[in-house]
Parts: sequence; structure tokens; C-alpha cells
Amino acid sequence: MTAASTAPTRTYSGVIPPVITPRTSEGEIDTASLERVVDHLIDGGVSGLFVLGSSGEVPYLTNDERELVMTTISARNNGRVPLLAGASEQTTNRVINEGLRMVELGADALVVTTPFYALSNAAEIEAHFRAVKKATGLDLFAYDVPVRTHAKLPLDVAIRLAEDGVIVGVKDSSGDDVACRRLLLATAHIEGFCVFTGHEVVVDGALLGGAHGVVPGLGNVDPAGYRRMFDAAAAGDWPAVRAEQDRLANLFEIAFTPDSNRVSGGASGLGSFKTALVLLGIIETNTMSVPMASLNEDESQAIAAILRQAGLL
Amino acid sequence: MTAASTAPTRTYSGVIPPVITPRTSEGEIDTASLERVVDHLIDGGVSGLFVLGSSGEVPYLTNDERELVMTTISARNNGRVPLLAGASEQTTNRVINEGLRMVELGADALVVTTPFYALSNAAEIEAHFRAVKKATGLDLFAYDVPVRTHAKLPLDVAIRLAEDGVIVGVKDSSGDDVACRRLLLATAHIEGFCVFTGHEVVVDGALLGGAHGVVPGLGNVDPAGYRRMFDAAAAGDWPAVRAEQDRLANLFEIAFTPDSNRVSGGASGLGSFKTALVLLGIIETNTMSVPMASLNEDESQAIAAILRQAGLL
Amino acid sequence: MTAASTAPTRTYSGVIPPVITPRTSEGEIDTASLERVVDHLIDGGVSGLFVLGSSGEVPYLTNDERELVMTTISARNNGRVPLLAGASEQTTNRVINEGLRMVELGADALVVTTPFYALSNAAEIEAHFRAVKKATGLDLFAYDVPVRTHAKLPLDVAIRLAEDGVIVGVKDSSGDDVACRRLLLATAHIEGFCVFTGHEVVVDGALLGGAHGVVPGLGNVDPAGYRRMFDAAAAGDWPAVRAEQDRLANLFEIAFTPDSNRVSGGASGLGSFKTALVLLGIIETNTMSVPMASLNEDESQAIAAILRQAGLL
Amino acid sequence: MTAASTAPTRTYSGVIPPVITPRTSEGEIDTASLERVVDHLIDGGVSGLFVLGSSGEVPYLTNDERELVMTTISARNNGRVPLLAGASEQTTNRVINEGLRMVELGADALVVTTPFYALSNAAEIEAHFRAVKKATGLDLFAYDVPVRTHAKLPLDVAIRLAEDGVIVGVKDSSGDDVACRRLLLATAHIEGFCVFTGHEVVVDGALLGGAHGVVPGLGNVDPAGYRRMFDAAAAGDWPAVRAEQDRLANLFEIAFTPDSNRVSGGASGLGSFKTALVLLGIIETNTMSVPMASLNEDESQAIAAILRQAGLL
Repeated sequence: MTAASTAPTRTYSGVIPPVITPRTSEGEIDTASLERVVDHLIDGGVSGLFVLGSSGEVPYLTNDERELVMTTISARNNGRVPLLAGASEQTTNRVINEGLRMVELGADALVVTTPFYALSNAAEIEAHFRAVKKATGLDLFAYDVPVRTHAKLPLDVAIRLAEDGVIVGVKDSSGDDVACRRLLLATAHIEGFCVFTGHEVVVDGALLGGAHGVVPGLGNVDPAGYRRMFDAAAAGDWPAVRAEQDRLANLFEIAFTPDSNRVSGGASGLGSFKTALVLLGIIETNTMSVPMASLNEDESQAIAAILRQAGLL
Repeated sequence: MTAASTAPTRTYSGVIPPVITPRTSEGEIDTASLERVVDHLIDGGVSGLFVLGSSGEVPYLTNDERELVMTTISARNNGRVPLLAGASEQTTNRVINEGLRMVELGADALVVTTPFYALSNAAEIEAHFRAVKKATGLDLFAYDVPVRTHAKLPLDVAIRLAEDGVIVGVKDSSGDDVACRRLLLATAHIEGFCVFTGHEVVVDGALLGGAHGVVPGLGNVDPAGYRRMFDAAAAGDWPAVRAEQDRLANLFEIAFTPDSNRVSGGASGLGSFKTALVLLGIIETNTMSVPMASLNEDESQAIAAILRQAGLL
Repeated sequence: MTAASTAPTRTYSGVIPPVITPRTSEGEIDTASLERVVDHLIDGGVSGLFVLGSSGEVPYLTNDERELVMTTISARNNGRVPLLAGASEQTTNRVINEGLRMVELGADALVVTTPFYALSNAAEIEAHFRAVKKATGLDLFAYDVPVRTHAKLPLDVAIRLAEDGVIVGVKDSSGDDVACRRLLLATAHIEGFCVFTGHEVVVDGALLGGAHGVVPGLGNVDPAGYRRMFDAAAAGDWPAVRAEQDRLANLFEIAFTPDSNRVSGGASGLGSFKTALVLLGIIETNTMSVPMASLNEDESQAIAAILRQAGLL
Repeated sequence: MTAASTAPTRTYSGVIPPVITPRTSEGEIDTASLERVVDHLIDGGVSGLFVLGSSGEVPYLTNDERELVMTTISARNNGRVPLLAGASEQTTNRVINEGLRMVELGADALVVTTPFYALSNAAEIEAHFRAVKKATGLDLFAYDVPVRTHAKLPLDVAIRLAEDGVIVGVKDSSGDDVACRRLLLATAHIEGFCVFTGHEVVVDGALLGGAHGVVPGLGNVDPAGYRRMFDAAAAGDWPAVRAEQDRLANLFEIAFTPDSNRVSGGASGLGSFKTALVLLGIIETNTMSVPMASLNEDESQAIAAILRQAGLL
């Protein structure tokens, strides 16, 4: 993969899961398990990998751990699919530094959020993306995740950034499906521009509405299911799309098995994905990054039951 | 129409727009215009009317005005389609009183939000709906509109209320499409239970996912468009569904024409619907309820241009 | 008391508690208990009563119940102290109707929130208060309670309304003590303009900063304590002010005794005030309005222990 | 200054401003100006410096810039006052690494927020602080700033951390003055435990209520004013405290001079402090970190007028 290009084509589409980060029971990055996850995903038919996203526990990884994850995935991938990497830092200059580091380590494109911890306005958000693009020259995806950054990417800013070639796409995890549809319509004329949905249980509707891809955390567990859904959409077989989505939506109930008093909202979904991958024999442990709680045996059994219902166990 | 029944079948489905409330330039309820709106909607193929919803400016109507709106619509409808009426009050006993009043005035079913101004928890929200059902015996729709009530209807509460026959459906204006899909799946086994979406620009995806109806504010302007989309979905013609939705999503841009410094978020969409109906010759003025600003001539011209693009003018 | 006057002097100051609404065990308004609450408060040295506020469970009262509460308090008060009454309705014209009704029933001034359920902007909020003032001619207090209305009274709007005589004061329950101080400084030149704090545990600081009064829910339980604090502040004895506030802040821990899974945030504080008044022999039951849970025996015992520590039992 | 001690006494109290970070017109850290700020603050009578806080634009500084700021301040301070340093990172292990780095560079204590970007619960927040304490052994202040982290430090967690010696204090920028008072009362028995307020316009009330210190961004502009207020409180001269606070509150209006459409909420206050320091001849430029807008000449003139009113120019 080469990085930035002046006229982005739709290099990026399809199923691009955010890769989870396995840990050993001692809490170290488990690179052997991570390599198996990479193979599991590519064997499942994904068309790209989103490295160091929220589902990869990126806010919890030290800089050394981020490097280890990036290099491990890059080596194992060995150019098979494009690697989109999160440059997860608070503001512009920190994002630039992190982004340049990720590209050196093998990233093909960067995924960048609005500033966080910062208290921004629309003008600053726009200046932020423009500065990152100018300093890196890389293909940029705007990652719209206000549940974490508490600053929605404004629609008019997104459209301007798209029209000016500052961003090649948006990963929409905003939950604002109205704004997402408006973005799809407003950018339909821009060749190669990508809108990805991050909401794994309503992908069918997003695809019907014209989304170009999906970044499903649940895709770590069942990449093939998402690939089938995507292929059915490409073939215009909408009943099959919906049936696959219903199956995956039922599978997604694993994310709601943990006790919400014990396990945080952040840890619940990710912990369930890890637990499922343990049950599927792909990773060794479901250990979470400090300070998140790992799922327990009761929760694991509940997840196993759902995996069996979904035909995965 | 009769009201409550012990075994609700899918009496309610399809396109059920929330009827806007026209006013004269002096600010009085304009019953003649309101009657024309009713005819316009029924002629457009709607299968029900949602009377005194947010789009009907219900929070702004005095009790006398609410009565006048309800009786005007009921008389003009004359039993042609079911009338779902909002019982828009802060908490349980006030809702009950308002609901009983609405039924006396012609409502077939009630649409009830979670308590507002109140600071509730899940247990209170559940008790609220159970008390309203017990006191009225009517078909109840839970209206999930946290942008206004600031209390999302919890999914587990909604499911229990559905299973126990307390509610016959949910009007989902929450914008939480993940929770909506989970509700659809969890209530699929309940005969006649209805899930309606309130988001007019992503109806295609909702229908693909199994939603039974739509309550589109924009349906005041183009009821026939929504009916065509619904019929195409029933026929399994998903490309036609999407094309119609894209056309309607473009039409919905009228809601974003007003100057957001002058016109509030609440007034912007409703004002644009009224302005469009003036341009279409169906109502006399686009006057809003106090203290909302009415749209001005510039905004009206911008809306006219969009109506022309959508083939309505 | 006469109602509106063209040049408001500081008619309103000191301790003006929001009167709770006792119910019988059957859930009816308990007027005998309510009369005892009125005497308890006036005997405790309050300088006014806030009738039908949030602490009076106003969102839960039917219109008939609101009338009964207002007339009961008005009759028992018999002109001893001014009565500020909440006109708790969603928007302008409903507020006007409710406000005029309250004045007919004995209110001396009205307490009016920003619109709720509605989605307003600053211009609408300003127009709202101006329209209520114009239609009623009464002394108006703006009640700034964004935790309930989800629309903070903008500071510049409050200042303009104060300067133009539209409002005679603000009851600040916003929790935004920075904005409150700015309001105090910006309105210091307006003769008779009142800023009341609604936060019962930081009244000492508010009085030091220049607040003219306090509307403490906890004042239902210990009106004399708040009166002592106010008098000490008037006398410049700030160590005594703080000591009294510390005692009252410790007493306020009754509001945090209920189980937050069972009892909502709204019901917890009010339920604890009612329970304390039962323990003090002033009202008959701690029954809450539907659908709120009433406190149980365990919670009552915890409250009794705190009352003993505070020297009230 | 030595760092951690097993039995913390009130090493930390008084006025501890968060030091702003001057930049040259080219956007580089201006160390000469920064040294003058340090002298200005210490000459003004501050009892500590909060290095790399939000007012220091810490989210916008690269790692190299953070090091340069820390070493510059540490060298210039030369042990005159304790240095509290922000370890501003998303989660636990990143905070630990940053904290250890800061101590190597001269910090005496660390200031740590709840995790951000992360989606935490109370248990994770508690585990976070315990892990940072265990790994660093340093004096920790919990920095409660939910407007930035979107996770309020829960009161019961703060109390447990205080009782167990995990934290030696809380810097409260939550704006929740009720919770702050409850924390003061609940920790009053813990020798040396510190509660600092971060809200510069209501320090008088906080001091009356027992707060041990203040971390005022505005203290960059007028450290001597805050010192006078603190000394007056220590002397029990509460009218003098309030008068000084009123003067400083009026001075704080500089933070509201910028055009809110152009300048973000984050940049407005900090930009006004920098502009004032330029006008006072202490720093060279009011340049902000990318992507924040710097204040313009009109805004500078408005600030100059306020400085003159406050007697500073």
C-alpha cells in the first residue's frame, strides 16, 4: 500500500474491523494471540484493518504498547490489506507526531478524531484536520465519536474537508444517523470519498443508504458474517442482508451480558469480544487493560450460549 | 375506530404523520387550514394521524387550543384513519387526565412520553406507563423522545411493557438506532406490536430492519412520498425504497434553511414544514406559536427552491 | 400583599422555602398536614413561601390538586408572608394561563422557568419571559433550573430582563455559581432586584457573595436554622453563618440516604424531607406522588439518626 | 521540596495558579516569557505552581514542549514554592509514565484527572487513582474537571481515596459546589487533606466554607489579588475577602470579551489571560497553541479597559 495520493479512489471499503488488543494474564500485549486475530480477520474476508482504535483499547495503551501492536499487525498483515491506524491524541500537534510515528511503523492511512479534553468549536475542529493533513500528507479518516470526544464533527465542516480533499472518509460512530445520511448525500459527488458506519447492528440500513463500509467491533468475532452481509448488499440481495444483520445483532447481545455495576460501558463490549475470541480458541485470555475489569466465568458462560445460538460454537 | 382491545393486532402501521398546527397571522388556530392538512394527508395515503405531537406544537398549545385541534381533526377525519393523540403532560396523573380528555374528543389511541421536568429512574418510568394503562385502558404508544424529555425509555422497560400488553407500540424518536434494532428483535414475537421510527431521513433502513411504520414530520409536506416508500418496502423493491428516501432526505433540507441564531432548533423544522405547506397552497400562513420565530421571506424562497428540486412545486 | 408594582423594592428576601406537598396514605392531598407545614415554616421565621415549586412536586400534581394546594396555603398563610407561586407549564401561553389562575387563588408573585419539552434558543427564552410579564403584569421570578428544563437561562438574557423590569428576581438552582456571581455583580445597580440561591448547602458563600435570599428545600425541615444563618449574615457574623451552614449541610445528608436504584433522584430529596417531617410530627405520611417511590422504614431510621445528630430529634 | 511523604501535612494550601504557557509569534514555547511569568507569580505571593494544567494548554503541548515547560519552570522556581504537575494522559498506565517523567523533571506532586476518551465507571475511576499512587508513590491530587473528562469524580470514591491516603487533595473544577461542600465536611477529619477550588470568581464562598486553597487561572494576571483574598480569609476579615473577590470577578470579565463564534470556549479564557499578560508587559505575545485562535486587537483593547478598571493598568 502506498499512503496519500492526490486523487483518492475508493481504496477503502467493505469490512474494516477495529482490531482488539489481546493481553496475557499478566497484562502484557500477547503478540501471538494478536497475530492469530489478524489471520482470523483476513481469513474472514475483511478488506482492511483499523489498528489502534477504541476497540483496540488505544486510550489504555502506553506508547511502547502502541508501537508493539502496530508493528505486530503490520508484520503479520504483510501488505495483504490496508492498515488504517488511529492517531489517538488530545490535539493537533500531538496527533501529528503520533500519526507520523504510525506511518513509520506501517500504517497506510490515519484515523483522527476531533480534539478531546480540549473544549473546541467548529472553526478549531476544521483547523485541526487541515493542520494534520498539511503536516502528514496522508490519507485521513475523520473518526466521529462524540460519545468519547464530546465534540460531534459538524456536518458542514465534514463536507468542506471532504470537498477539499483533506479527508478521504469519515468513520461515523456518532449514532446520529440523520447527519450520516446527510453526509452521504452531500458527498456522493466526490469520487472515492468513503463513509463508514461504526454501528455494527444497523449496518444493513447504512448499506442500503449508501455507506461504503463498516468498522464493526463485533467483526473481531465474526468477520465472515460481516463480509457476507457486505457481499449480499453488493449483489442487491436485501433480504439476505437483513437476515445476516439480524443474526449479527443477536450475536451482539454478548456486549450486554456483563454486570453494568462491575464492568464499565467501555469495558463491557470489548470484554465480550475478547471473551468470545477466547471461547473460539483464537486468543489466550480476556484480560483487559488497567483499570478495566475483565469478564468473569458467569459472563463467559452467557457469552458462550449466545455464540452457540449464532452458530459460532 | 374502537379504542383499546385485549389482543391488539397490527391496527397501526404504515405512514402516520404528526399533524402540524396551522395558525392565522393573528396567532389563532386556523381550523380551515387544518382541515385541508387532514385531507392532504389522507389523500396522500397515510394510514393514521398522530394528533398533538411535538410537530403539532403541542407544548405550545393551551388546553383550549388542544381541544380545538383534536375536535377539528376528528371531525374532518370522520373515521377514515385511526387517530393517535399525544397526552403531553409532565407526569402520570396529568397524562391520565389529558389522555381521557383526548379520547372523549375522538382519539383512538394515546401517545405517551416518559415523564419530563421530573427526574425519573427506570422504575418510575415503568410505573408511569403501567399507571396510565391501568387508568385509561387505552391502546398506548410509548413515545421515546429523549431530546425533549431527557429520559430515554430503557430498553428492558420497553420490552417488559410490550410483553405485558401495557403498550402496543413505540414511537422511536430517540436517534438510538442500536436500541431500536434491539427492541425490534426482542419484540418480534409479540403479535401486533409496533415499532415506528420518527426519523424521516432514515426510514429505508428502519423498514429494512423490520420497523412497522413511520411518523415523519416531513410527511406533512409529502405524504405520498412516504406512502410510496412504504409500499415499495412491502413489495420488496429496496432500490425504489432507497431512491424515494434519498429524494425525501434531500427534501428534508428545508428544515435546515433557517438561520439558527434567529430560529431555535424546535422552530426550524416545524417552521419549514409550515412554510412548505403555504407554498403548496394548503395552509394560509407559517405563523408559529409564541414564543417561536416564524420563518421569513428569504427562508421561504430557499424552501421553495428545494420544493422545486423535489418535484413538489 | 399586593401583587405587581411598577417600582419593585426588595419585597422578597430572606428564607423562602419551597413548600412540600403532603399526601395521605391513600395518595390524596393532606390539607391538614399542609396547614401544619405552613405554620411550622412561618413559626420558623421564613419571610415568604414558594408554593408549587419542584419541591412541592408540582410536575406530579393535577390541576385540581394544584388549586387545592394553593388555596390551602393561601388561606392558612392569611397574608402573613408573601406567596410566590410556580406556574409550571411547558411554554408561554400555558404559563400565562396557569399564572393567572394562581394569582386568582392567592399568589403574590409568579415563579417561571424557561420553556421545557420545547427546544428553545436564547431569543425564544427572552420572548417567553417578556410575553408572560406583558400578559400578567405580575412580579416574576425567573426560575433557572436547567437540571429539569435543560435550558439554562442565559446570563445576558437574565440581565436584560432585570434591567427592563420584566423580572424582579432569579431563583438560581442552576448549580452554575460562576454565572450566579456574574448575575449578582451585573444587577447590583438595579434597586430591589433579587438573586436567590436554591442550593441549600452553600448558602453561606452565596450570602457572602451578596445573594438576597435562599429557597431551600431543606428549609421545610429546619426553617429556623436557615433563618439563623440569614440573620447572622445580616449581622456580619460570618463564623456563625458558616457553622450554621455546616450543621445544615450535615442535615442535608438525609437526602442521600435512599437507595438510588429504588428511589429516583427526584424522589430522594423530597422523600427525605417528607420523612423528616413525619418524624418531627408535622405531617402524617411520607407518601409520594405517583409514580415516585416513598421511602421505607430503613431509610426512615437512617434519617432519624441524622435528625438526632443535628439536634432536631 | 521533597516529594511524597507518608503522613502528608498541609504542605499545599493558599494560591496555586495554573501557569499559562507563553508562545512566540512563531508558535514556539517562549521560555524567557515563561520565566517572567514564574517570577510574576512568586512575587505576587503564590504558595505553589500548578504546572501543565488545562490553563497551561497541556492538551495542546507535544511531549517535548511539556518537558521544556516543566524544566523551565522548575529551574526558574529553584525550590521557592512546591510544583504540582499535571500528568495529562488518557488512562492509567499512560498517566503513570507521564507522572514519573514529570517528577524526574522537577515536579513535587502530581495532578491527575479521571480517565478521558475512555468510558469509565466508579470502580474503574477508583482503580485508576490507586494504580497511579501505587506505581508512583507520589503525592497525588485528583483533578475533578468533568467539563473536560466528562466523568465526575464520584464523591464516595474521593472520600475513600482520601481516607486511604491515595490522594492528598482534590482540585475541584467540577462546578458542583454541593458535592464540594460535602467533600469538605467528609474529609475534615483527615489531617492535611486539601480541597482546592478551581473557580476563580467564587473563591470567597469556598474559603468561608473551609477550602484550603485556590487554583485560579486568573491568578496568572493578578496573583497578588488572590493572595490578599486568602490572607484576609485567614485573618477572618470577610468583608475584605468579598470585596477582593468582587474586584477579581469583575476582572474575570476579560475571559468573556472574545467573540464566541471565532474563539472557542477553551481558548477564550486562556487567550484573555495571555492578552492581559502582554498588556502588563510580562509576556511577548498572546499566541495560542494550534488549532486555537489568538485574540485580536479589538479584544485586546476591551481587555485593556477592564484591566484599567481593576487598577492593573
